Amino acid sequence: MDVFEAIKGRRSIRKYKRKAVDRELVKRLLDAARWAPSGGNIQPWLFIVIEDSKLLDVVRKVSPGYFGEAPLAILVCSNKEKAYKVGGTLGRDYLTICDCAMAVQNMLLAAYALGLGTCVVKSFSHTAIKELLAIPEGIEPELLVIVGHPDQTLKPPPRIPLNEIVYLNRYGEKFPNLEG
Amino acid sequence: MDVFEAIKGRRSIRKYKRKAVDRELVKRLLDAARWAPSGGNIQPWLFIVIEDSKLLDVVRKVSPGYFGEAPLAILVCSNKEKAYKVGGTLGRDYLTICDCAMAVQNMLLAAYALGLGTCVVKSFSHTAIKELLAIPEGIEPELLVIVGHPDQTLKPPPRIPLNEIVYLNRYGEKFPNLEG
Repeated sequence: MDVFEAIKGRRSIRKYKRKAVDRELVKRLLDAARWAPSGGNIQPWLFIVIEDSKLLDVVRKVSPGYFGEAPLAILVCSNKEKAYKVGGTLGRDYLTICDCAMAVQNMLLAAYALGLGTCVVKSFSHTAIKELLAIPEGIEPELLVIVGHPDQTLKPPPRIPLNEIVYLNRYGEKFPNLEG
Repeated sequence: MDVFEAIKGRRSIRKYKRKAVDRELVKRLLDAARWAPSGGNIQPWLFIVIEDSKLLDVVRKVSPGYFGEAPLAILVCSNKEKAYKVGGTLGRDYLTICDCAMAVQNMLLAAYALGLGTCVVKSFSHTAIKELLAIPEGIEPELLVIVGHPDQTLKPPPRIPLNEIVYLNRYGEKFPNLEG
């Protein structure tokens, strides 16, 4: 699939079919994720693929942002300890979030190109998730990506026109000929 | 360009030709950026396209991570005030970073598909950049993306094998048949 088609066509899916996600597809998402850029090439990311349906039920209960019955979720974590060693506080507190978010965006686009639906969940209980998935100290859950076969077709959500969010050279200066 | 090709082929470019970037291409990058997912559809992003070469020289001086002579940079900022109003502290302190990083990843992939090179700069003086670009309170610079026509071909940097960064169901549990 064309990259612009993927970027524009991807939606956040909240209704899924009761059909498992093939592990070969999961591997392609993970492979896409790790090719995101990484500040200082730290690659602070770790991925926990949650396939077990009982475990997923509990994850859902502690994640207010988790909608629908997706058969799979991928928890993207950052290795804060490693990021701190290589990149100091900027590495630990900022680059980890950016790197994981960019890895997630790759996963979303890859999933869409493979016919899968995804939704990023940022609202979940860190404490509960860490205990549930046996995540040690120094590793921090960042984003939860739910994955499945979509059971809905969505219209694109509204987007702010470019002429309201783009400036030229300095804040407030008009970038010419942008759509209104 | 195929989405997987873009994801795997994109590199961080640090040598650029002395050739301006057409504004029509810049618009395509900005359009790609704003189709990133956004928590609560806040769309906290703002983009300052820095084209002025004298301004860019100063930006470069206050950005230790800025290499090469790219003719253009796009500063991605977040509207912290708006994000706080809609999403509280999670919105202001976390979602803004994630959303801007995902928007940046879209830009990087779009640029690569259009034959442009990019590099994300995370290390710059926030104070100096805010003053230089007249960025008001409540708006925070997140990531600086330098853009130009690439003047180097790079091999992919090493990537950690998937079997070292992927787990199944719980931290430490092996996901079968991953490349070593």
